[in-house]
Formats: sequence, structure tokens, C-alpha cells
Amino acid sequence: MTGTPRRARRTPTGTAKGAPRRTGAGRARRGRPGYDLDALLGVAIGVFTERGYDGTTMEDLAAALGISKSSIYHHVSGKQEILARALDRALVGLEAVLTDAHASADPAVARLERAVRDSVATLIAELPSVTLLLRVRGNTEVERAALERRRRIDGELAELVTTAQGEGDLRPDLDPALVARLIFGTVNSLIEWYRPRDDTSPDLVADALCAMVFDGLRRR
Amino acid sequence: MTGTPRRARRTPTGTAKGAPRRTGAGRARRGRPGYDLDALLGVAIGVFTERGYDGTTMEDLAAALGISKSSIYHHVSGKQEILARALDRALVGLEAVLTDAHASADPAVARLERAVRDSVATLIAELPSVTLLLRVRGNTEVERAALERRRRIDGELAELVTTAQGEGDLRPDLDPALVARLIFGTVNSLIEWYRPRDDTSPDLVADALCAMVFDGLRRR
Repeated sequence: MTGTPRRARRTPTGTAKGAPRRTGAGRARRGRPGYDLDALLGVAIGVFTERGYDGTTMEDLAAALGISKSSIYHHVSGKQEILARALDRALVGLEAVLTDAHASADPAVARLERAVRDSVATLIAELPSVTLLLRVRGNTEVERAALERRRRIDGELAELVTTAQGEGDLRPDLDPALVARLIFGTVNSLIEWYRPRDDTSPDLVADALCAMVFDGLRRR
Repeated sequence: MTGTPRRARRTPTGTAKGAPRRTGAGRARRGRPGYDLDALLGVAIGVFTERGYDGTTMEDLAAALGISKSSIYHHVSGKQEILARALDRALVGLEAVLTDAHASADPAVARLERAVRDSVATLIAELPSVTLLLRVRGNTEVERAALERRRRIDGELAELVTTAQGEGDLRPDLDPALVARLIFGTVNSLIEWYRPRDDTSPDLVADALCAMVFDGLRRR
């Protein structure tokens, strides 16, 4: 995902409706009056996050959507496909952050800082689906596949930290794996406290987070 | 809680058994062979975190403990008391961090840094109960009371940031409320990635976290 996040639109239920994405995974493919697939996913993500995937039935989803179960089956094959598409929505955005970081010829520290900014933007633009992703524990095949993609993302971000340290731009006295966890622990903590209704813009959050992480809070 | 965390002991189930604390809230009061109240809480916290409080029955707890329900009732009045004591275990530790911060006459930035270190130590020493606390969403009276205590802790930590900024020791260009969320978002992210089996000691984590937060990662 590029530097400037697309603002997530809101559906009447208050659940984020995904903006268009690079791949077609989350894009509405089959038309139907009432809900398109994107809007259906938005509502389902909210229900999964609130009740947990295991605790959610197709009946619960139908009730939250105000449509029949057969209307849901018009869009997807079942609960597992909904989860797969919901997690894909978050993962596609986070993977795009790394594609951009790899495409640049800048020093690793600049690519890392950009990856941090873009991760903040993606988290805020896709807050509901990233929240779902970060709470996945691996109980099903779909969840394990998502965790595997997440691990690959985390591994590549940690490599970027190691490279930036090797290039002499990050202080050399800290373990790069621990540093990577701290940086992206800070980024991921957004799902716990950032609320779109706050008057804190995504750019303001990214600025403050990068200021703290790269330059520190102490006045010099 | 003072600077040096007491190592949590492990029960055979792998759940942390609480170390003695300052107040008596989590202390075993009624003896019984097999489980004391602390060990019972340790197992219950693991089950609550895994299945969610609402999704856990007294039957589930009895099965996890390998004792009868009436043996549980020997220790506590019911599920709600178990949750209250489990959350208290985390809250007592975090509140002690602030008591220590307030007791000192040091500049606010030094008290803040110590509060960050002590919070890291408490989180690691009480990882299971703090994990439970940070996932509480306020569905019951017990949970709402815990959230209220958490909000008070967060408010006092944010005040410490504001004071340190006012004393000129923290950079003045960042919103103190946002800074407080970023600092303690970083600290709280430990529950997502810190594992006691890692060879990363609590002190090493606290050192790296404070180095990043206060001085930044960029090499100077």
C-alpha cells in the first residue's frame, strides 16, 4: 500500500467498507441488490472480532446482515471463505507495504521508516480486518495460512531492521529481532487504542510514532 | 512493584503461579490439598484467555483443574469471583508501579522511565493475568470495574508524560496523550510477542524498549 492511505468508507452498521485494493481477492465479484461482497465482509469482520470466529454461526452473520443465509451463500461458499477473504483484505495491504519497501533503492533505514509509515496507514485504513488478523490464533487451516503469511511479513520487516543496522544507520547495541518486535508491536498496538472518530489523523499518528521510534522522546 | 520483577513460578500446567504480592487480594486464604487459590487462579486465567470468559463454564474450569466443581467452590463463590481475583492480580501490580512513581521526588522524566521499566517487569512477571486484563471488553460488572481501574492507571501515566514535557525533558512538539498511548502501546504489545521461554530477560527487554522510546533507534 502506498504512502497515502485511502480512507475507509463507513457502512450504515459502522463497519469499515474496504477501499479498492490491488488484487481482486476482496473485490465484489457477483452483484446483488442490498450487499456486495465487500460490504458483507465488512459486517462479518465486525461480528467475528466481537464474538470470535469459532463462536460465530452463519445464523449470527445472517442476523447481523439482516438477510437470509441463502443470500450469504449467493456471495460465498461458507464461513471459512468469509474468514479467508477478510484476512486476505488485511494481508494484501501489509504485503504491499513490503513490495514497496523492496522496490526502492533507498538506504534500508529510509525503507524501514517508509514501511513503518505505510503500515500505520494500512492499519488505520483497514482497522477492522487487521484487528481480526492480529487476533487469529491458528485454530483452522485458513487461520494457519494467514499466520504463515503474517510470519513472512514479520520476517521481512526484521530483515530490514538488520540491514539498516548493518548499514550503520541504526544504533548497533540492540538486538535487531527484539527491535523489530518493539517497532511493530508499537505499530500493531494501534488496533487497541486508535479510534477513527478521534481527531488524530493517520499522518499525525505516523509522524509521532516515527519521531518516537527513530529519534526518541527525550529533548536534546 | 519495584524494579526487579519476581520471576513467576510455573505450575505443571505451564500457567504462571503468582508470586506473593503487596496486597492480600490474590493470596491463598483457605488451605486445601492439591490446589491453593493462587494455583487455581493461574489455571483459570489460562482457560479464560484461551476460551474467553463468557465461553468458559465452571465445568470447563473443573475439567482443566482436574477437580470437581464443589472443590472449586471451596475456594471461591463462582466464576465471577475467579475473574475478579484474576484481574486484581494484574491491576495490583500495575497500580504499584504508579504508587512508586508518585512516591519519588525525581524529575517526571525519570519517574516516567522508571514506570515504563516497572510496567515491563510487571507485564512479564504477571503475563497471563495482564493478558487477560488487556483483553477485557467490559461485558460484566467485574470487567467494567477492572476497565475503570485501568483507565485511572492510563490517565496517571499520561499525566506523567505531560508533566515531563512541561518540565522540558521531553520534546515539546508531540501531543502528550498520543505519546502516552504510543509508549504504553509498546509496553502492552509484550503480551502479543514476549514468551517466557525466550532467552530475552525482562531487563534486556526493558533496556531496549527504553532506549528506543526515550533515545530513538537512529545512530547519531
